[in-house]
Amino acid sequence: MLTNNQHDIDAAWRHLDQLTKPPRSLGRVEETAARLCGIQKTKQPQTKPRSVIIFAGDHGVCEEGVSAFPQPVTIEMMKNMANGGAAVSVLSKLHQAKLRIIDVGSMLPENEEMPGVERKLVRNGTRNFTNQPAMTLDECRQGIAVGRQTVSEEVEEGTKLILLGEMGIGNTTSAAAISAAVLNIPVENITGCGTGLNHEGWNHKKCIIENALHSHQITGVETVLSCLGGFEIAAMVGAMLEASKHTIPIVLDGFIVSAAALIACEMEPSVQQNLIAAHISAERGHRLVLDHLDLDPLLDLNLRLGEASGALIALPILDAAAAVFNEMATFKSANVSR
Amino acid sequence: MLTNNQHDIDAAWRHLDQLTKPPRSLGRVEETAARLCGIQKTKQPQTKPRSVIIFAGDHGVCEEGVSAFPQPVTIEMMKNMANGGAAVSVLSKLHQAKLRIIDVGSMLPENEEMPGVERKLVRNGTRNFTNQPAMTLDECRQGIAVGRQTVSEEVEEGTKLILLGEMGIGNTTSAAAISAAVLNIPVENITGCGTGLNHEGWNHKKCIIENALHSHQITGVETVLSCLGGFEIAAMVGAMLEASKHTIPIVLDGFIVSAAALIACEMEPSVQQNLIAAHISAERGHRLVLDHLDLDPLLDLNLRLGEASGALIALPILDAAAAVFNEMATFKSANVSR
Repeated sequence: MLTNNQHDIDAAWRHLDQLTKPPRSLGRVEETAARLCGIQKTKQPQTKPRSVIIFAGDHGVCEEGVSAFPQPVTIEMMKNMANGGAAVSVLSKLHQAKLRIIDVGSMLPENEEMPGVERKLVRNGTRNFTNQPAMTLDECRQGIAVGRQTVSEEVEEGTKLILLGEMGIGNTTSAAAISAAVLNIPVENITGCGTGLNHEGWNHKKCIIENALHSHQITGVETVLSCLGGFEIAAMVGAMLEASKHTIPIVLDGFIVSAAALIACEMEPSVQQNLIAAHISAERGHRLVLDHLDLDPLLDLNLRLGEASGALIALPILDAAAAVFNEMATFKSANVSR
Repeated sequence: MLTNNQHDIDAAWRHLDQLTKPPRSLGRVEETAARLCGIQKTKQPQTKPRSVIIFAGDHGVCEEGVSAFPQPVTIEMMKNMANGGAAVSVLSKLHQAKLRIIDVGSMLPENEEMPGVERKLVRNGTRNFTNQPAMTLDECRQGIAVGRQTVSEEVEEGTKLILLGEMGIGNTTSAAAISAAVLNIPVENITGCGTGLNHEGWNHKKCIIENALHSHQITGVETVLSCLGGFEIAAMVGAMLEASKHTIPIVLDGFIVSAAALIACEMEPSVQQNLIAAHISAERGHRLVLDHLDLDPLLDLNLRLGEASGALIALPILDAAAAVFNEMATFKSANVSR
């Protein structure tokens, strides 16, 4: 069966094969150009203007000691991002990408403001999912709505490309639990060391996830998200669902964003066509998630930072793809022999 | 034994480990930042301004039908590059890199000018190396001198980074012959399909190289280059030798540039420390050459175009490395908990 955008993809390849280079010699750069044409339904793929959206949220499961960093780092890093000191700040400035930092569920008290951070708080942190659902269904849907709303605003402002990232101490635990549930695979295979657990910490994290998977009544993808997820993950799901309605490509970052993509694609399979995998991270399990999504990452640079840093490091490959597609001469126009 | 620049590399890692991210979580981007510091002997690595230098030359061995494209394409593509239509033109504009196109040995008659192309011709094409040395030793040294001179000019203009590329129909044959000679490995293992040979063409190309390797009196690295090389390859060797004298990092492109690096490192082993491998190309043999050089490529995007396109596609990773290094906050300055 032809996918919706196969016509645009085929037209893109016909154009690419006319350009002054041995056919297909730009490899994955050409594939990326064709994919952009398919997503944007265009013969002139565009990567500018683009927006980086960071969703932040805290995780009740942090109580269990599943992270190498303490919970206050979520708030501290939101501030650092807004002040220009985080990797995402530096890289979005470098690549002329607008940066929005959206607090969907951090522990920062509701009435406090933080300059440079948009507060769209659903709740101060999720519940500890070892003994109760992380979010109620209603809270989970509110988180999704924040993501949808944010992307709607970007669409209105004319963005051509969205890069998603997250901040939330403890969220590789949530992402591993989600991935194990959706892929139905052993926790061992999907759980990594996050920001830097040692072997003992890794074993403990696996036990916590294992127990959680047995204690919840998972009845479908929405309960996977509400029981095991986080507000920032719910928001990213909403962002992906909304972006695919508007033919805006989503550039995935690492393991946590990819776990959100698993949920979004379970909810709406056509979302897959809208995604571009920036990189394969060093976090165990990321490869399994991307394989399930049938996405081939562009980079393998041993990254494991999150906060859209991998998406931003891959962004210039998309720029190169669009530039090559739109600006190179054809054999005919340049009078080059074949 | 400590290498010359180990002190700067160690200092770079101490700085990187203070930045607001889990230690080493930016993987190869951090490694690249440390390497840039080592090469530039600095605590503030710089990637701008940068220059792309394309050396062009024709190959007598083209008579043997070793390429999928006809010889006139070398000249046609120099013109296309100068006119903005080639991949290297589009990508160097995209990434604000100065582009120089230097004709060291094309078939374009000596008295003809080509706007946008610097003519530093040693000779119109090499001799067919199946029955005689491609270059005399004197011609070979002239080619090297062109590369040295070009880099000297860039150093005077203040360049911080040089990306090397080449144009020359038939030059994967020359590069494979050089690599087989230097690495002392079977021609089969190092010879690829270049711009698009079929299986029959590939077998023919291997025979030509095999015969050439048996017919020359190789007495050292300079005779490898003069007997089997090309003017653009000799110029790249000179460029690498000169750049390493001035602590200017060289970003390698694909198989042919890497074959030049083999020669340069045989002539002067410290050149190795000055090189950054942009990508592993789809051309068979490139991995063996990079392994011998002990260089780990940043990208694996199935590229096989040449003309510095792979170096340019990797360039933003170097920009990201420098930006992260120079601009990110430390845990202390940003008040982030560890």
